[in-house]
Amino acid sequence: MKTTRRQNLFAAALVGALAFTTIARAADPLPSWNDGVAKQSIVDFVAKVTKPGSLEFVPVAERIATFDNDGTLWAEQPLYFQFLFAIDRVKALAPQHPEWKEKEPFKFLLAGDLKGALAGGEHALIEIVAGTHSGLTTEEFEKIVKDWIATAKHPKTGRRYSEMAYQPMLELLAYLRANGFKTFIVSGGGIEFMRAFAEQVYGIPPEQVIGSTGKQKFEMRDGKPVLVKLPAVDFIDDKEGKPMAIQKFIGRRPIAAFGNSDGDLQMLQYTAAGSGPRFCLYVHHTDAERKFAYDRKSSIGRLDKGLDEAAAKGWTVVSMKDDWKTIFPAEKKIKR
Amino acid sequence: MKTTRRQNLFAAALVGALAFTTIARAADPLPSWNDGVAKQSIVDFVAKVTKPGSLEFVPVAERIATFDNDGTLWAEQPLYFQFLFAIDRVKALAPQHPEWKEKEPFKFLLAGDLKGALAGGEHALIEIVAGTHSGLTTEEFEKIVKDWIATAKHPKTGRRYSEMAYQPMLELLAYLRANGFKTFIVSGGGIEFMRAFAEQVYGIPPEQVIGSTGKQKFEMRDGKPVLVKLPAVDFIDDKEGKPMAIQKFIGRRPIAAFGNSDGDLQMLQYTAAGSGPRFCLYVHHTDAERKFAYDRKSSIGRLDKGLDEAAAKGWTVVSMKDDWKTIFPAEKKIKR
Repeated sequence: MKTTRRQNLFAAALVGALAFTTIARAADPLPSWNDGVAKQSIVDFVAKVTKPGSLEFVPVAERIATFDNDGTLWAEQPLYFQFLFAIDRVKALAPQHPEWKEKEPFKFLLAGDLKGALAGGEHALIEIVAGTHSGLTTEEFEKIVKDWIATAKHPKTGRRYSEMAYQPMLELLAYLRANGFKTFIVSGGGIEFMRAFAEQVYGIPPEQVIGSTGKQKFEMRDGKPVLVKLPAVDFIDDKEGKPMAIQKFIGRRPIAAFGNSDGDLQMLQYTAAGSGPRFCLYVHHTDAERKFAYDRKSSIGRLDKGLDEAAAKGWTVVSMKDDWKTIFPAEKKIKR
Repeated sequence: MKTTRRQNLFAAALVGALAFTTIARAADPLPSWNDGVAKQSIVDFVAKVTKPGSLEFVPVAERIATFDNDGTLWAEQPLYFQFLFAIDRVKALAPQHPEWKEKEPFKFLLAGDLKGALAGGEHALIEIVAGTHSGLTTEEFEKIVKDWIATAKHPKTGRRYSEMAYQPMLELLAYLRANGFKTFIVSGGGIEFMRAFAEQVYGIPPEQVIGSTGKQKFEMRDGKPVLVKLPAVDFIDDKEGKPMAIQKFIGRRPIAAFGNSDGDLQMLQYTAAGSGPRFCLYVHHTDAERKFAYDRKSSIGRLDKGLDEAAAKGWTVVSMKDDWKTIFPAEKKIKR
C-alpha cells in the first residue's frame, strides 16, 4: 500500500501534534523508506530501547545489531557476488592451473557453462572458492578483493558491486549507529572477502565482520610473519552456524537481527529468544519490477520457513516493493 | 633499582624545564608507573601516532592494541586462575562424577595432589577444563564464572581474583582508550571464561576478548535456542595461534601488542612486522619481593626467547620491580 503526499502531510501534522515525534520529516533518518508498518516498527524499537529511564531501555554496550550480507545489505543475484568474484579469479588464474581444463567444476566455468559448474551444488561452490582464494597471504588476498570491488561490474546492472548495496539498509545502519548500536555483519560469505570492502561500503570495521572462514597457516616469509590461506574450509557461517559464530565472535546476544533467507532463521530465533526488547526483520524480495522477486523456491536466498516464522512471531517483514522508495544508491551519490 | 622521592621530584623538574612535557605530574595518566625508559616509550608512542599531520599519525580505526591476559593484565601464579577455577569446579561437581575417583587427572585433584594432576602436562589441563566447563549452556557457564569471580579468593594473597589485575596495566588500558585505541585481549585463556569478567575488570567488552575456544552445539531447549559447550577443544589461542586469531577475529594487524611470555612472541612479531609505527612490550616478572619473579625457566609464563628478541629488536621490557610503583589496586579502591 502506497501512502500519498496528503496522507504523509496529515501523518506529519498528527505526529507533531502528539508532541512525542519520533520521525520528523525535516530530519527523517530513513528517507528511502516509505512510511508504513515496517519503517514505524524500526523507529519504535529504537525509540524505546534508547529512552533513559524506560523499562525497556538497553545500555549502549548491549545494543548489538547483526546483519546478514547477501540479499540483506546488498544484492545476491544472479549469483552471490563472491562467487562472481571467484569466477573472475578462475579466468585470471587459469594459465597457472592447466589441470583445471579437465577438472570439475573449473572446466565448466572455463567453457562458460555456469549451469554445469553449479550442478555440483554447495560442494562445487566451496571447490571454486577454495581453489581461487588459497595460497595467498591474507594481505595479498585483501588487495585483490579491493582491486576487484573498485573495478568489476555487475553483469546485469553494469554497476560496481559496491553500488549494489541497498540504500535503505545503508540508512538503517547509520540510523542504528547514531543511536548507540554496534553493527555487525554475520554472513555466510567469506570473512576476508567482506572485510576488504565492508568499512568503505557499510561503515563496518573488519572486527565487526563475521563470516565463513578458511583454514590458514602461520609462516615466516623473508623473516616476516604472514598468514597464508589454505584450500580448506574451517567454518560455514550459515543457519545454526550464525548463532554459534555470534557467540564465538561477539559473546553477547544481539538485541536486533536482520536477514533475508532461511539461512538467517536461527540467528533471528537466537536473537528473539533473549530477555528484554528484541527486534527481528526479514527483507522480502518482492520487487520484480525494479530488481528481482524470489522467496520460497529460490536456490539463492530461499525464504520459506523464515516467512512462516516471521508471520507467527510478529517479526517485521520488509516488502522491497512497497517499503522501499529506492533500492540502490542514486548514481550521482556514488563516490568514484 | 628503586627511585626515591627526591629523584622523582628532580625528574619532574627536568621534564618541566625541557618545555615539551609529555607527562605532566598533575594529570599523569600512568600514576603507578615510575618515570623511566619503559613509561616514556609508551607515552612517546601514543604521542606520535595521535598527533594530527605527523608522518607517523595513525587513524583511530587502525589503533588496535592487543593484550595477553595471564601474567600481563593479571597475575598467573601459582597457577593460571582459570585452572584454579576449574579445580574449584572439580570439587563442586565431584558428587555427580563418581568416575573421577579413578580417572586421571581428576583423582589427583580430589586427593589434593596438585603436582600429580599437573604431571600430565597440557593434556591434563585440557582434560580438567573440558571436564568442568562442558555440558552447560553458554549462559549457565557465564553465570558460574561471574559468581566465582565475585566470591572466590586467591590461595596466597586472599584477594579476589579481580583484585589481582595489575594496577599499572589498568591505567595503561584506560590511557590507550582515551587516545582512541581499541583494546583487545588475545589470550590462551578460555574465551568465555574471560568474557564473564573482562568488561567489569578491564573495561573490555566481550566482543573484544579473544581466547581459546571449545566446540559447541546449537540446540533447542523448551523451544528456545541455546548453545551448549562440548568437551572438545576447538582452537588454542597461543603462540602461532595468536596472530591467526587476530586475523580471524579482528582482521586488522595491531599497531601495539603487550605480553609477558614466549606464548606471546608470535603476536609481538606479527605486530612489529606491519608498516608504520609499531609498539611491542613485554612485562618481565622481576619482583620477587612484592610478588613473584620468574622468566626463562618457569613452566607458567616462560619468557626466554621473547627476552632475547625484545633485546635484539629494541622492544620495551617492563621490569615490574623497577617500573611499577604498585602491583595491585589499593585495597580501599576496590569496589565490593
